[in-house]
Amino acid sequence: MRHVALFGAGRIGRIHGSNIAALPGVSLKYVCDPVGDAAAQLAAQLGAQVATPEQVFADPQVDVVAVGSPTDTHSDLIARAAAAKKHIFCEKPIDLSVPRAEACARAVKDAGIACMIGFQRRFDPTFNEAKERLARGEIGAPEMLVVTSRDPGAPPAHYLKGSGGIFRDMLIHDFDIFRWILCGDGDEAATLYATGSVLIDPEIAKVPDIDCSVVTIRTRRGRLAQINTSRRAAYGYDQRFEVLGSAGMLQCGNHRPSEVVQSDAHGVRADKPEHFFLQRYREAYRLEVTHFFECLQTGQPFRTTIEDGVAAQKLADAAAQSLESGKVVTL
Amino acid sequence: MRHVALFGAGRIGRIHGSNIAALPGVSLKYVCDPVGDAAAQLAAQLGAQVATPEQVFADPQVDVVAVGSPTDTHSDLIARAAAAKKHIFCEKPIDLSVPRAEACARAVKDAGIACMIGFQRRFDPTFNEAKERLARGEIGAPEMLVVTSRDPGAPPAHYLKGSGGIFRDMLIHDFDIFRWILCGDGDEAATLYATGSVLIDPEIAKVPDIDCSVVTIRTRRGRLAQINTSRRAAYGYDQRFEVLGSAGMLQCGNHRPSEVVQSDAHGVRADKPEHFFLQRYREAYRLEVTHFFECLQTGQPFRTTIEDGVAAQKLADAAAQSLESGKVVTL
Amino acid sequence: MRHVALFGAGRIGRIHGSNIAALPGVSLKYVCDPVGDAAAQLAAQLGAQVATPEQVFADPQVDVVAVGSPTDTHSDLIARAAAAKKHIFCEKPIDLSVPRAEACARAVKDAGIACMIGFQRRFDPTFNEAKERLARGEIGAPEMLVVTSRDPGAPPAHYLKGSGGIFRDMLIHDFDIFRWILCGDGDEAATLYATGSVLIDPEIAKVPDIDCSVVTIRTRRGRLAQINTSRRAAYGYDQRFEVLGSAGMLQCGNHRPSEVVQSDAHGVRADKPEHFFLQRYREAYRLEVTHFFECLQTGQPFRTTIEDGVAAQKLADAAAQSLESGKVVTL
Amino acid sequence: MRHVALFGAGRIGRIHGSNIAALPGVSLKYVCDPVGDAAAQLAAQLGAQVATPEQVFADPQVDVVAVGSPTDTHSDLIARAAAAKKHIFCEKPIDLSVPRAEACARAVKDAGIACMIGFQRRFDPTFNEAKERLARGEIGAPEMLVVTSRDPGAPPAHYLKGSGGIFRDMLIHDFDIFRWILCGDGDEAATLYATGSVLIDPEIAKVPDIDCSVVTIRTRRGRLAQINTSRRAAYGYDQRFEVLGSAGMLQCGNHRPSEVVQSDAHGVRADKPEHFFLQRYREAYRLEVTHFFECLQTGQPFRTTIEDGVAAQKLADAAAQSLESGKVVTL
Repeated sequence: MRHVALFGAGRIGRIHGSNIAALPGVSLKYVCDPVGDAAAQLAAQLGAQVATPEQVFADPQVDVVAVGSPTDTHSDLIARAAAAKKHIFCEKPIDLSVPRAEACARAVKDAGIACMIGFQRRFDPTFNEAKERLARGEIGAPEMLVVTSRDPGAPPAHYLKGSGGIFRDMLIHDFDIFRWILCGDGDEAATLYATGSVLIDPEIAKVPDIDCSVVTIRTRRGRLAQINTSRRAAYGYDQRFEVLGSAGMLQCGNHRPSEVVQSDAHGVRADKPEHFFLQRYREAYRLEVTHFFECLQTGQPFRTTIEDGVAAQKLADAAAQSLESGKVVTL
Repeated sequence: MRHVALFGAGRIGRIHGSNIAALPGVSLKYVCDPVGDAAAQLAAQLGAQVATPEQVFADPQVDVVAVGSPTDTHSDLIARAAAAKKHIFCEKPIDLSVPRAEACARAVKDAGIACMIGFQRRFDPTFNEAKERLARGEIGAPEMLVVTSRDPGAPPAHYLKGSGGIFRDMLIHDFDIFRWILCGDGDEAATLYATGSVLIDPEIAKVPDIDCSVVTIRTRRGRLAQINTSRRAAYGYDQRFEVLGSAGMLQCGNHRPSEVVQSDAHGVRADKPEHFFLQRYREAYRLEVTHFFECLQTGQPFRTTIEDGVAAQKLADAAAQSLESGKVVTL
Repeated sequence: MRHVALFGAGRIGRIHGSNIAALPGVSLKYVCDPVGDAAAQLAAQLGAQVATPEQVFADPQVDVVAVGSPTDTHSDLIARAAAAKKHIFCEKPIDLSVPRAEACARAVKDAGIACMIGFQRRFDPTFNEAKERLARGEIGAPEMLVVTSRDPGAPPAHYLKGSGGIFRDMLIHDFDIFRWILCGDGDEAATLYATGSVLIDPEIAKVPDIDCSVVTIRTRRGRLAQINTSRRAAYGYDQRFEVLGSAGMLQCGNHRPSEVVQSDAHGVRADKPEHFFLQRYREAYRLEVTHFFECLQTGQPFRTTIEDGVAAQKLADAAAQSLESGKVVTL
Repeated sequence: MRHVALFGAGRIGRIHGSNIAALPGVSLKYVCDPVGDAAAQLAAQLGAQVATPEQVFADPQVDVVAVGSPTDTHSDLIARAAAAKKHIFCEKPIDLSVPRAEACARAVKDAGIACMIGFQRRFDPTFNEAKERLARGEIGAPEMLVVTSRDPGAPPAHYLKGSGGIFRDMLIHDFDIFRWILCGDGDEAATLYATGSVLIDPEIAKVPDIDCSVVTIRTRRGRLAQINTSRRAAYGYDQRFEVLGSAGMLQCGNHRPSEVVQSDAHGVRADKPEHFFLQRYREAYRLEVTHFFECLQTGQPFRTTIEDGVAAQKLADAAAQSLESGKVVTL
């Protein structure tokens, strides 16, 4: 039986907590959150106890910590978990600073513990099916990737102040998809160009940040990737990618709440995509923690390592640098 | 060079006339229509002359007549064309009376002329592609057929008075599709059950006629067909069929004016189907007369013979009889 | 807290058991199954105890029994549960005999207990969305229904011996869909015609049974329904319906394991439908028992009553009678 | 009656010739091609005469020349037609050299003749429908554009020697789509970044040229465009674009030869896209010349002017410069 302490009782913490608590062979022992009410409520719901970080790290029975707390707490919690020799499941990103993220990776390695970063999109049934077909060679060698990643609506500008900017906050997932799909055989980004605009909310310019962006990456082997991202898609959460290979193409479409198609005087209408990430990636979040504990048990490598986390953040940094300089960045 | 006389300068006559006039090796010589203005206008547009039926049948240069005049003129024109030894392309149906249709078939046979009936749906690129795949065995042996056939809106009730009823006027095409798809190897209908209702326009009940119908046919070999038909589909002309075989299914979807998909707050919306038969079957009408003249030239058999016309009308008669009696009809 | 006893630890029993055990406010106390190993394993997995029916009905703490045992045990268990004043969730059908099913309905009514029949399709997210849009009038008044219901493969003929025949075993669900969609305002079937064939496995003829069927129902108000069913669809479990209304159409499409579309030299290929009912209706089964316990709590009426169960079986009986006689049956 | 002389009896010349010859009020008088047999055959087929350029430009009856000859003849023919005061329909591009193209535009302007460049994609029913909806504001203000443009297979490397490179030869159409869709209100490209690779055929590197490319354009108003292009899509000619607006998205999908969907053990398979440009843009080519002659008649402006032709070539030049330098180009 694995005993787990969960950090964070907010939106993402509740998802991970529920999924962890439902796993056979896993016991959610503690919930930690500075907002005591949230911690108490989630703990009660999942049959766990409220605890302080000190209690968690001092308890020898706890062998896993799951980190779903705010981004700026991640690196500290990883460091303390590594010191206490507890395995880590940490929501992305490791840290907004690449050097601090790298320090985390070193600490994890030195401690000899297991650490997985929560890039849940790799567990999405559609995305993963595409990855598996690609790996089986069903479309030959990969050549080009087009990623479309759009939120249903922009958050208030003030929310974006601590986000690290659109590349670190939002495209971090898309950079990971790029590496997962186009660099599976050891290839890596060679050059990156990013640009963007404020087209949705002028307040976002004052953060300062942008709300629409396009990124181009060319790999060492000459593969080409384009990412387009917007904070606002009036039709909902738009999460697609398509990969062109030498023998075909794989397209990952959106998921819909139902398969009803309505034909009337206005046209032939299917559902909008699932509303946002909690709906679209509900199954991915579940499969992600299942995978984490299975790998702990079997010793198999994680699908998303802390090194993957660092690598995605380096691409986000390069994009921010390209945007600022207006120039192509060599990696 | 084939010299052709066209009977009928109305909606369907104009279609056939234009398609015939555009064919290489074919010359549209005459247009006949009791409405002199319509005949004159179409003749002028297509470079033909206006003529009376007498002139047509007396002109030895004419070797083909194309019949696109009202239904109640078909059998007489076929008989006269047969007597004059002129080949015939005749818009469906042969005649609302099966005995008269059979007499036409005999006249054609005795005269040794070629006669094709215009079941244009067999030339629709989608329907024909399905037929060819079926014939190649791509879904194994055919077992079940579901035909959906709905008009965009009901005509005024008075228009239906001379129509022969929904089965002879509208489902005649669907009965032909049934035979083409499910009876291609010599199988034939064994039993037929039809029922229906007036759900759209109470005036139609006074014709008397119905505006919605469902028909079930079982063949001698036990294959099963269902046809559903309505005089009104609020979303446009709905023309689909699907055939289940021992190794798969073929579905024929509607054609759309464009492949634009619009995603907005209301959903993900494709175009409605093509508006009505003139749009949906525009290409089918063109391919149909092309086929007719090719077969005349090569001696190959027509895809839709006068015997097919008679057979479809017998099914329409059986359906009318089933509706009236409320009983299953054995063929 | 509701305490529940589950009858049946086979395929469907395990589904219901797992879903019940995961509900808040509900405790699965007992699992009963004459196959002791199956009962013990499921009880252990879900934290319940193995019990005999006698123990269940004698335990005053149990206030709900969930019946997922073989069909021929349903009516006896319903009768005993009614006698013991325990609420009932019973997998369809009530009983293969309509009189026995009616007796169950009377016993339930006399006992004043709640009883819901497991027509899980009414809880499928796609089907239910269509029902809700229909109820909101989005396509006007319903006029025609086409139900397509095909299994991925025929079971061995011997399995069908005790099934009651295709209409009672398989179409029972489709008859319920018909009533749910087309009779929601008090309309009912007026005439029914069914026919069918053995096209898949000649052994099925010896049962005797058929493996493909088509059913036509006309309601008192003249609405029209067609159902087509096959024991074998080479492409998987095909579960669709479409309803035409005065202002449009609603089509319920199949669910797919992923939204990957692969384009290659062979075409543009989407996934096959979910393999079979355990996959397609996984969510429906979960929502169904959730609904049951919510209604118990709130006193709201069930979406699928025991009267619905009886009514569907009457249609199945009528279909069997129509098939045997070759005639239209008046209800 | 307009009298037209056609230059070029090759693949594209035959298309334009047939479409022109079928127009009412237009007479194709001459066909010119240095390959005498091709000219003679096409002229015979379309009822025209073979002529030399000298005869064409000397004939006062000819008031329109249609240029479908090889690219390196375009600018000379435009200049001679302008000098002879004949209106011009010219297949894209004007000339591989921007200065020469600009000289053509000046010559046309000075001569006061009408000149339209054949960007047929603007006449594609799907693309044009999207443009019209955008213009009507159905998705609000345009923000991002993603263009996918892939050929079914790479031509032999030697064919590409005189092509001007992938940007001038292939993406010229995509640059025009960019301007048409994203710059309809006077916006223009501000910066452009292009990169690419040889992933299909190493011989193409020796031309030198590339066979896959990605281009990013940012407009003065901050709108963002991404174009991805490959010389090889194993599934056929892939011609799509999608535009994100403040209130929704418009996606232009591929056209298919038929609407058959085949479901079998391998999946649910639709047709591949239309094979190549002759099939996909058949209707666009027809509508394009129809538009040309209508505008000549009515004096309405052309949808694609010679200035549009120059503008697209400037973007192609910028892309070539970006590829060569590895830097972002400011326009």
